[in-house]
Amino acid sequence: MQHIISIGDFDRDAIDRLLDHAGQIDKKQFDAHALEGKILAVLFFEPSTRTRLSFESAIARLGGTSVSVGSMEACSMAKGETLADTIRVVSGYADAIVIRHPREGAARLAAEFSTVPVINAGDGAGQHPSQTLLDLYTIRQSMPIDGTDVALIGDLRYGRTAHSLASALSLYDVRLHTLCPTGLELPATLAERLAEKGMEIIAHDSIDEIIGDMDVLYVTRIQRERFPDSASYFNVTSSYRISPELLAGAKDNLIVLHPLPRVDEIDPRVDASPHAKYFEQSHNGVPVRMAMLMQVMQ
Amino acid sequence: MQHIISIGDFDRDAIDRLLDHAGQIDKKQFDAHALEGKILAVLFFEPSTRTRLSFESAIARLGGTSVSVGSMEACSMAKGETLADTIRVVSGYADAIVIRHPREGAARLAAEFSTVPVINAGDGAGQHPSQTLLDLYTIRQSMPIDGTDVALIGDLRYGRTAHSLASALSLYDVRLHTLCPTGLELPATLAERLAEKGMEIIAHDSIDEIIGDMDVLYVTRIQRERFPDSASYFNVTSSYRISPELLAGAKDNLIVLHPLPRVDEIDPRVDASPHAKYFEQSHNGVPVRMAMLMQVMQ
Amino acid sequence: MQHIISIGDFDRDAIDRLLDHAGQIDKKQFDAHALEGKILAVLFFEPSTRTRLSFESAIARLGGTSVSVGSMEACSMAKGETLADTIRVVSGYADAIVIRHPREGAARLAAEFSTVPVINAGDGAGQHPSQTLLDLYTIRQSMPIDGTDVALIGDLRYGRTAHSLASALSLYDVRLHTLCPTGLELPATLAERLAEKGMEIIAHDSIDEIIGDMDVLYVTRIQRERFPDSASYFNVTSSYRISPELLAGAKDNLIVLHPLPRVDEIDPRVDASPHAKYFEQSHNGVPVRMAMLMQVMQ
Repeated sequence: MQHIISIGDFDRDAIDRLLDHAGQIDKKQFDAHALEGKILAVLFFEPSTRTRLSFESAIARLGGTSVSVGSMEACSMAKGETLADTIRVVSGYADAIVIRHPREGAARLAAEFSTVPVINAGDGAGQHPSQTLLDLYTIRQSMPIDGTDVALIGDLRYGRTAHSLASALSLYDVRLHTLCPTGLELPATLAERLAEKGMEIIAHDSIDEIIGDMDVLYVTRIQRERFPDSASYFNVTSSYRISPELLAGAKDNLIVLHPLPRVDEIDPRVDASPHAKYFEQSHNGVPVRMAMLMQVMQ
Repeated sequence: MQHIISIGDFDRDAIDRLLDHAGQIDKKQFDAHALEGKILAVLFFEPSTRTRLSFESAIARLGGTSVSVGSMEACSMAKGETLADTIRVVSGYADAIVIRHPREGAARLAAEFSTVPVINAGDGAGQHPSQTLLDLYTIRQSMPIDGTDVALIGDLRYGRTAHSLASALSLYDVRLHTLCPTGLELPATLAERLAEKGMEIIAHDSIDEIIGDMDVLYVTRIQRERFPDSASYFNVTSSYRISPELLAGAKDNLIVLHPLPRVDEIDPRVDASPHAKYFEQSHNGVPVRMAMLMQVMQ
Repeated sequence: MQHIISIGDFDRDAIDRLLDHAGQIDKKQFDAHALEGKILAVLFFEPSTRTRLSFESAIARLGGTSVSVGSMEACSMAKGETLADTIRVVSGYADAIVIRHPREGAARLAAEFSTVPVINAGDGAGQHPSQTLLDLYTIRQSMPIDGTDVALIGDLRYGRTAHSLASALSLYDVRLHTLCPTGLELPATLAERLAEKGMEIIAHDSIDEIIGDMDVLYVTRIQRERFPDSASYFNVTSSYRISPELLAGAKDNLIVLHPLPRVDEIDPRVDASPHAKYFEQSHNGVPVRMAMLMQVMQ
């Protein structure tokens, strides 16, 4: 039995195979009855409608069924009960479990007690491997990952998706550029780990100075709660905002990604530009998650 | 790609074709695998369990799957995100979207940004076309719509279903009778529009004086909040209450409709009468919505 | 049309036939398309994620679809509306209804107004027949029910599952042993009814004195709210706690059951013991509910 808990459990070959499979699925080369009769339990202890819906769509596209537990329900289900017990019970109702949980490490704990495969759909500051896989998939749709210059922009301290993506990119020949407000830098331990793997990481102060050299801008949301007041929030976010004017100086094949939802980080006028790939990225969640489900449920 | 946003987008032929199709479905003349492999996203920014369930049943009867977002979830999904972005994301997960939203015009906006067909399941004081289609279908089950005398009873000012039905009936040869508390009359602009289409609209003060001439009573709920106190609410509603005693003076083939839930507007003793068609009307939501889904998803 | 409202509606033959059928299902001897095209409405006016999920899994395993209404939604659906009306509406959307309701007698009322079969998934202090059937099924997996000594332990006054199980066991040749805190004894009327059926019921003060003679320990949760303070709660519960030390004195084939969730009643070290059957018991909910659905929906 195989679980998918962390992107760190994948080597480069395993990632490439999974993304190749997702690519075939995207071209409609899959059996729409592959998981017929199978049940996926979607157990969300924390709301994430987007991720939930795309897993539910993925299992349906393969002929299977989902049974879902929303965040409030999940919490009341576990009230006074250990996560171990909840998982033991639910694993009797389904052929695989997708779990989202606010506590780091919860997915790995769930995997220990489950009698069916567990997929981590985000656990606190921990991992969110399906997001990272769809990020990589979206880059690959436009260009080979090797040899690219990727800029991570926004909240690099708390942004789980940026951490996971950086780790995965260290398996490839990628130069990492960082752009973030003071205090929201990449955690030192992560930066050290990436450097040990031979990744070059370059911090920048201004996006204008590097826009001409980048292949990928990976933009993440800066949460208003991180700032003492609205004025300083707007002051900071506006200096990282992606606009058509900024993109005028970019390479032709630069792509802009964002895990969504976006708020003020990307000007809506960018949506019409060929650089904008964030909605495709979101849609890619379905074929990538289909490939993940087939990997563990077949 | 076709959306269903307003009953006003349908001409009489289009309505009749759709209702004929619903009639065939009702006689079990349909392919139970017609929408196999298709996914319907049910996106409710406002609760309406009845409408949600009947859309979910409709897609299931046709072999498809639904993925649903309840009202609280939908609102948190859209928190800080534009409706346009939410729709762009969800349209990557499904083959069609049913949307319910508290803001008038939201469904038409959603249709602009969606890459898949959108069906309006009610947007604020706006439209609710599937309700109107099932209302018409229920009348047609008992009699030809042309030549009927239809009484709208209750809150005609805020009652969205009454407005939509009146508009649709103006496509037929129907005489419209109105009965409502002072202050809850049909909006003047709507009344003018109907009159321009040649519809005769007659306001009445008492239901007793017309009960012998009506073919259809379309009863809507009068909300207690519209009145200064309970006494005046009960005073008003009791004068519009449909009772077996009142129906004793009705034509044999008179039918009583109500979009439900009903509270005090219809005496439960009426339920057993052959005039009572409001539960059939509610059940008709399934074949009518099946016909709508086939129209846009096939 | 057949409803399943109370375990009391079953005679011993009917129970045995249903459990035999569940046993076949458990051995994968069933048609995975048996309920294809059928829709189960899952209408929960009170939260019970565990029960809901296992009904949803059961219908999915048989090829059917569920449409679900959660507790908050169900309550708002019924706001101002009678349960009779809600049921009449929902029975137009589905081929069967599973209902859970906080009010005793609600399921039987629902059955009166439904045009499709109704299954009671718990109504207040009333009945919860699917729980009792899976309890019996789990005992039967380990031993013939006839001739056993069964101990009910915990809150026997308010514990609906204990009441239902005791009633069902009175159809068999079972000796019933009770162990409970003062004030939480089996209701006198129930005890009399069981005695009239010829059941021997023996009350005990200490679990140690009987552990060597029991075949089944049926442990239920004692709710902290029943006690004036935490100290007296802990004092009482610790004296009923099932531990490996206690089980050292048990028969080899003793089984420990619990309707779950368990909190402090069973030491987690018991989980690894061959006596522990409470997770199997929970998993048995799926085949037993599949047999129930086939009985009423086919």
